[in-house]
Amino acid sequence: MILISAEEIAKHNTYQDCWIIIYDKVYNLSKFLPEHPGGVGVILEQAGKDATLAFSTIHSQEMIHRYLPSDACLGFVDPATSVAETSKAEERRREAIKNRPSLNEILHLYDFKAVASRILTNETWSFYNCAADDEISFRENHYAFLRIWLRPRVMRDVTHIDMSTKILGYYSSFPLYISATALGKLGHPLGEVVLTRAAHSHGITQMIPNFASCSLDEMTIARKDGQIQFFQLYINKNRDISRKVIQDVQEKGYKALVVTVDVPSVGNREKDLRMKYAGAPPGIQNEKDLNRDQGASRVLASFIDPSLNWNVIKWLRSITSMPIVIKGVQTPEDAILAAEYGCNGIVLSNHGGRQLDFAPSAIEVLPNVIEGLKKSGLLGKIEVYIDGGIHRGSDIFKAIALGAKAVGIGRPLLYAMSSYGQAGVEHALQILKDEFEAVMRLSGTNTIADICPNMVDSKSLSNHSLTPKDYLSSNVYDRLVPLRSKL
Amino acid sequence: MILISAEEIAKHNTYQDCWIIIYDKVYNLSKFLPEHPGGVGVILEQAGKDATLAFSTIHSQEMIHRYLPSDACLGFVDPATSVAETSKAEERRREAIKNRPSLNEILHLYDFKAVASRILTNETWSFYNCAADDEISFRENHYAFLRIWLRPRVMRDVTHIDMSTKILGYYSSFPLYISATALGKLGHPLGEVVLTRAAHSHGITQMIPNFASCSLDEMTIARKDGQIQFFQLYINKNRDISRKVIQDVQEKGYKALVVTVDVPSVGNREKDLRMKYAGAPPGIQNEKDLNRDQGASRVLASFIDPSLNWNVIKWLRSITSMPIVIKGVQTPEDAILAAEYGCNGIVLSNHGGRQLDFAPSAIEVLPNVIEGLKKSGLLGKIEVYIDGGIHRGSDIFKAIALGAKAVGIGRPLLYAMSSYGQAGVEHALQILKDEFEAVMRLSGTNTIADICPNMVDSKSLSNHSLTPKDYLSSNVYDRLVPLRSKL
Amino acid sequence: MILISAEEIAKHNTYQDCWIIIYDKVYNLSKFLPEHPGGVGVILEQAGKDATLAFSTIHSQEMIHRYLPSDACLGFVDPATSVAETSKAEERRREAIKNRPSLNEILHLYDFKAVASRILTNETWSFYNCAADDEISFRENHYAFLRIWLRPRVMRDVTHIDMSTKILGYYSSFPLYISATALGKLGHPLGEVVLTRAAHSHGITQMIPNFASCSLDEMTIARKDGQIQFFQLYINKNRDISRKVIQDVQEKGYKALVVTVDVPSVGNREKDLRMKYAGAPPGIQNEKDLNRDQGASRVLASFIDPSLNWNVIKWLRSITSMPIVIKGVQTPEDAILAAEYGCNGIVLSNHGGRQLDFAPSAIEVLPNVIEGLKKSGLLGKIEVYIDGGIHRGSDIFKAIALGAKAVGIGRPLLYAMSSYGQAGVEHALQILKDEFEAVMRLSGTNTIADICPNMVDSKSLSNHSLTPKDYLSSNVYDRLVPLRSKL
Amino acid sequence: MILISAEEIAKHNTYQDCWIIIYDKVYNLSKFLPEHPGGVGVILEQAGKDATLAFSTIHSQEMIHRYLPSDACLGFVDPATSVAETSKAEERRREAIKNRPSLNEILHLYDFKAVASRILTNETWSFYNCAADDEISFRENHYAFLRIWLRPRVMRDVTHIDMSTKILGYYSSFPLYISATALGKLGHPLGEVVLTRAAHSHGITQMIPNFASCSLDEMTIARKDGQIQFFQLYINKNRDISRKVIQDVQEKGYKALVVTVDVPSVGNREKDLRMKYAGAPPGIQNEKDLNRDQGASRVLASFIDPSLNWNVIKWLRSITSMPIVIKGVQTPEDAILAAEYGCNGIVLSNHGGRQLDFAPSAIEVLPNVIEGLKKSGLLGKIEVYIDGGIHRGSDIFKAIALGAKAVGIGRPLLYAMSSYGQAGVEHALQILKDEFEAVMRLSGTNTIADICPNMVDSKSLSNHSLTPKDYLSSNVYDRLVPLRSKL
Repeated sequence: MILISAEEIAKHNTYQDCWIIIYDKVYNLSKFLPEHPGGVGVILEQAGKDATLAFSTIHSQEMIHRYLPSDACLGFVDPATSVAETSKAEERRREAIKNRPSLNEILHLYDFKAVASRILTNETWSFYNCAADDEISFRENHYAFLRIWLRPRVMRDVTHIDMSTKILGYYSSFPLYISATALGKLGHPLGEVVLTRAAHSHGITQMIPNFASCSLDEMTIARKDGQIQFFQLYINKNRDISRKVIQDVQEKGYKALVVTVDVPSVGNREKDLRMKYAGAPPGIQNEKDLNRDQGASRVLASFIDPSLNWNVIKWLRSITSMPIVIKGVQTPEDAILAAEYGCNGIVLSNHGGRQLDFAPSAIEVLPNVIEGLKKSGLLGKIEVYIDGGIHRGSDIFKAIALGAKAVGIGRPLLYAMSSYGQAGVEHALQILKDEFEAVMRLSGTNTIADICPNMVDSKSLSNHSLTPKDYLSSNVYDRLVPLRSKL
Repeated sequence: MILISAEEIAKHNTYQDCWIIIYDKVYNLSKFLPEHPGGVGVILEQAGKDATLAFSTIHSQEMIHRYLPSDACLGFVDPATSVAETSKAEERRREAIKNRPSLNEILHLYDFKAVASRILTNETWSFYNCAADDEISFRENHYAFLRIWLRPRVMRDVTHIDMSTKILGYYSSFPLYISATALGKLGHPLGEVVLTRAAHSHGITQMIPNFASCSLDEMTIARKDGQIQFFQLYINKNRDISRKVIQDVQEKGYKALVVTVDVPSVGNREKDLRMKYAGAPPGIQNEKDLNRDQGASRVLASFIDPSLNWNVIKWLRSITSMPIVIKGVQTPEDAILAAEYGCNGIVLSNHGGRQLDFAPSAIEVLPNVIEGLKKSGLLGKIEVYIDGGIHRGSDIFKAIALGAKAVGIGRPLLYAMSSYGQAGVEHALQILKDEFEAVMRLSGTNTIADICPNMVDSKSLSNHSLTPKDYLSSNVYDRLVPLRSKL
Repeated sequence: MILISAEEIAKHNTYQDCWIIIYDKVYNLSKFLPEHPGGVGVILEQAGKDATLAFSTIHSQEMIHRYLPSDACLGFVDPATSVAETSKAEERRREAIKNRPSLNEILHLYDFKAVASRILTNETWSFYNCAADDEISFRENHYAFLRIWLRPRVMRDVTHIDMSTKILGYYSSFPLYISATALGKLGHPLGEVVLTRAAHSHGITQMIPNFASCSLDEMTIARKDGQIQFFQLYINKNRDISRKVIQDVQEKGYKALVVTVDVPSVGNREKDLRMKYAGAPPGIQNEKDLNRDQGASRVLASFIDPSLNWNVIKWLRSITSMPIVIKGVQTPEDAILAAEYGCNGIVLSNHGGRQLDFAPSAIEVLPNVIEGLKKSGLLGKIEVYIDGGIHRGSDIFKAIALGAKAVGIGRPLLYAMSSYGQAGVEHALQILKDEFEAVMRLSGTNTIADICPNMVDSKSLSNHSLTPKDYLSSNVYDRLVPLRSKL
Repeated sequence: MILISAEEIAKHNTYQDCWIIIYDKVYNLSKFLPEHPGGVGVILEQAGKDATLAFSTIHSQEMIHRYLPSDACLGFVDPATSVAETSKAEERRREAIKNRPSLNEILHLYDFKAVASRILTNETWSFYNCAADDEISFRENHYAFLRIWLRPRVMRDVTHIDMSTKILGYYSSFPLYISATALGKLGHPLGEVVLTRAAHSHGITQMIPNFASCSLDEMTIARKDGQIQFFQLYINKNRDISRKVIQDVQEKGYKALVVTVDVPSVGNREKDLRMKYAGAPPGIQNEKDLNRDQGASRVLASFIDPSLNWNVIKWLRSITSMPIVIKGVQTPEDAILAAEYGCNGIVLSNHGGRQLDFAPSAIEVLPNVIEGLKKSGLLGKIEVYIDGGIHRGSDIFKAIALGAKAVGIGRPLLYAMSSYGQAGVEHALQILKDEFEAVMRLSGTNTIADICPNMVDSKSLSNHSLTPKDYLSSNVYDRLVPLRSKL
């Protein structure tokens, strides 16, 4: 066993020659550096130092063995010389947390996002907040709700409001579930289990992500008695791997399988890709040193099967008794197919605008899907959920009025979690509940069943004469100016 | 009787230990402080001092006994030592008034609002100016008018213009009334009676607010011979209280009862809620010290009955002979119900956008309501008024053309009152009158009856492809930027 | 005859005590000062000095006798002591002219406006550039053209383009005439005759304004052989005055009478009104010193007859043989009436947005008018012109395609004249001609007759979902902001 | 042979007296200076110096003889004294290139444009980037794509994506060709052959511009085996010249003749025109020194035949066997005529918005053209391409879905070439390919044939209620502001 002194390690702190300490072992990352999905910068910041804290925040220990060749490990740090150090990024994060507003001052989900934008590292912020291409669909997801107006009824006894509903037969305190989002530990050291606990506090369902930072066991253990969890899955090119996961999940008590079908390849998320170059030193501007086609998102998705098709439903039925939900449907045609193939539910979703820019918002697709199912005599055979753009109680109300059984919410809760932990997520859910209850009361609706289509005015929903602003194109446009007098 | 020296009182000037003087008595507000609907800041500013002036501007004396426990009163200030002091906020207000523009320079209602924004305290400005959630409906109320165009006729003798009309049979010099708005003394020491006097000068009706700062007697006494006042009422959970108010009001000569039906719970007015934290010292950032769910608006509304329904009309008819107007109708369906239940009038209103965000503007609902009443054979059985967004004479003209009997105006007059008192309100009304007369003359209409639907072009009124900008969401969006050359 | 020394006069230079010299006479303007339509400031700038230059730029000499009481004249300035002085405003103007761009650099009509905005005094700029209320119609006049697209045809021989047309039977080198605009001497010392000369150079018709700065004789004398002038008239309350003007005009060879019918009262032009207060000293902020309801526009229009109606056509026919054109028609209904009453032409116009805000643009009204005349069998019985918003050759093309015989242009030529005199106006007209010819050539149209309705796409013309921005309301709106971390 | 010393030449460095050295000869440009299409400034910068480098970057040597009279040449520079000098502009350009981002950091076509805007000289940037009048059509070309949304299908096997297609029967690796753009050497010293080489690398067709900086031979030689080139032609007033070019082109192996038909006269490109004055010294502000009506674009186009009409097709058929494509069609009517006249293809194009402002975007015209051809039974008889506004793979997908056979791209590749040479163009094409493949995969389409009309939602495509912003008019508008308190 080789012992290496902290002083020696500290000398290897450049792009060409980069050593770091993780869990007391010393690694030479010089070759791995340009391949790191999270960018060069975050590693160089740790070059020659103990990176255990920064590493463990994001990765499980087994990642080392999966990605590094065995000869990358040079030996152990000499305990007599080692000094664990807090990274500058971590210091900055802690300072931002210390100066965050009081949780009680947070009035809406935008506050959480604004606070999180200062607390998260640039890398995490870019990964969570990015979307595809010009991020038109990302913003359209929100703007589409702005084109729907309410039709409030008055003079109805609204003393008692019952917001509860059932999702695949399971009780939900209001028609919202926590959607699957990847890499929770980037935002909070405890990762997805924070969401598990908050979901229980509020009596709602959590959809566990395939790309969780926490292990399946951690998330299963965090579940309380009677609490409902669904499991979101990407189908692997190697079906055996998927089969094992599905059987494991069923045994561990997950109540439904949610198959994401809109990632045959990963979307072009440019904020995320930019990060790769953010910390690169000037010396490596050479065109061969770094290569395109990466970023955190791409690495994650490399095993997903692009040949996925409707036949997979039969196969799934053959290996599991869990209800099957298809996530990523975007047309009435596919909604009808899903119903015909016997799926139990569909999530209308454009993946938060992260996959295909100009994919329509789920809320715009929703009434067409309901209409399509109705015409095909399939309405009621399949539950329809939507996600994307939900920020206010009125958004939930609009979705229910147009035919959704429930809505999913993802990123806003990551921001709440990153800024205030479990208390933040619970506060965020409470805000949504309060807002939704208020809209129900002020609209004169006592139960979910009362929220029918004529409670909203969606005549302008499909009017796309105004699109979310395209910042790239306007940024490079030179505006015409008239002449003024000289000097 | 305990006498306490001003010097002693002055020592108790912190969040934990806060005494103030009101009407010569000394109160310990340490416990009450976090509960104060108007926020912590305004009280701390007075801590250890004589707060009589600041208090009396907003509250009637009886409020002390209603909200403070009897042991909060510690005794009397020793008159030998007391020194009344003008608060800094009051000094700032007076300075702003001294520097306001000449009243003759005020050309339109926006000038009043701009001037008032500097004169009012932050708390009052936030309370008057706030609206629900993203304030979409608040601004839509104005923008909807921008989507209506005029169809002016020429070559008509317009030497004589008669703007007068009747509201519930009572003469009005032009088709506008002063709508009910709460807490007038926040804006002007004399409160609502300023509006009463200006209404008389202009020969129009005033709708007295249930939440007036002035007492009913004050407002009744301020009424001149032949002057018309309506009374706006929130129905109390305790019907006996409402009955007494109604009978009192009828005896005192009010000519109509206007029942507000759109407040089963209070809207989520975030500017108002923010104020609660504005003056809080850093030491109390702890999450339990302050609690959400308050703000001036919420406290006011706690007694309103959420079980209110159409049966209340029969009960009202049984205890009063006053005409009954329902304020807050927002759909043709409810307009028809109001007519069928025998109401004398309805106010189409979304409560100035302060209740339910995305509730439609009254002006957009108006033509649908008229159409609905016509189809049901009820047109003419009930008078239809609208409020919300009226700022120009052309707005009044558009409302009349689309079928309104009259329009209500609220906040703009508060701004005029706050900035210039009664002269300000009279000037504001004169501007509206002049503008309305000009629109009538330039449109070739001599009387209110001439202002028929084909005097306007409202084809684009219901086109919602462009919504008022959602500032919160765009504020937290990171715009994409293309690369430029480095350095 | 009293002689007063320049030194003595110089002492009377305050708001309370204000003497000035005009054409060697000394006037006490102390009483007149607050009544001056052009504002207090411009006079105070001259107080105690010789104001002849400033006065004569704008007014004819007879104005003195019309507006000042005879006792305002105190005597003559003692020639031994008088010193004529150039005003500071005039110096500023000359400096701006010296620094204007070369005329050849002016590429479009916006350049002229930008240059003029620096050269004109604030008072003149405000008067020329102002419009009614929120200036929505003013800007809509331009924006409406942006909603019309072209349908260019290719592979047509466009070697020869003939842009000429006839207006009331008179040759015009292209389908544009100079419209009537008031007070030309505010922009250029020679006033309207500058336009007369440029009209001749380009072979187009000039519409002489009733409110010209130049006398009728000056403008008549400036006319060259064969040059066509129309006369624009406001009908006086006293018909005898109008009769005399009409007969005078006919004798002097004007070829048509254009009766403006959209000014029964003057529009609310707030930029113009603001000017009244611009120069007022702080000492007179008192609310009674200055009164509303004035500004240059209002004084001019006081004699116009608000009782004007269609009967006037018969009367006009009885006293003149000139063709009669009605200017200010804004609906198909009135266009049909004009044709039925035997008028020879109509100008669709909202008076440049200066009269009634939210009056539609002429270009939007145009296709409806053509349709209305067609349905009534009156198409071809009356010529239809439009004005308002014309800035580009493509605007002219669009108007012709939608049925206009010609378009009028006003303010843009005032800006050209104010900045560069006659050469400027000729350059402006040449730009329009070049642009119009280019559009004809690139659209594949050889003659005016080829410019038919299917050369344009006007499907979105009446879509008013996007209105010109309402700056007043957005200026006083406090935008919502999410919380950020403190400090 | 006259020898002139560098010292002597250096003295002639003013507007009135301007000598320069090109290829060792000395020219007196004093008379030519005001006529220079590229502006006075670029020449004055070289006055008295050796301009060979600057000249040769843009012009071929024969230009000297074509444009300068023979007596302009004064003799040879005395080699003993001459010193070649790098121009300041060239130094600036090299500095910008040194500081450009790494090519791998370039994520989309906007990055290239942003980088190029700093590298190109002002003159070149203005020439490349300019468009007609208010540049509405220029930007609309891009914005129109924003009004088209996608309808992605899921659960389809998209392992294999085949993007290849045929254009006029020739293989293309994806449905895009490099369109013809003038004066490539302004952007890169090697000019159009850079594009030829990149086209080969990517297996796509290049359309060679009539106004290339490179000679036909250079571009022919650069062609690799099997590589496809089309030739774009402006028909000369002198048909003999055109005939020779066509025969030459056919012999040299060009595969199709693309006749541009939308330039009977050159568009009014104001950014380009402005450049003429950019370097002019203050001394020549006199109105006669410079004249309008020029700029780089106008000089180029002076020989184009404005009498061009459909008869030309028969003549072309008589002299060439190449397929004939008409470029610049903008209506279904002309598309039908082109098919009837037997053309093999049409390019729907508004010439990048550089010809006629308010000409519609090709993408908006496309579905109407397809519909028109279908109704006339001509669909399939003629290939339809579009150009203008293509920046993303999704733009290509939308065009194909609406019926285009392929799309052309011009300026974005000039920016890539100017910033990074051939590697830049190849990277740009790779980005487009990657993006297009991703859209195909994420939409569930395996081949070009799968991209049918119902893969997109183009309902809002023709909704023009929102037009690209008109910067000139808004720049000269004085916004209304409400009064605030004074001081």
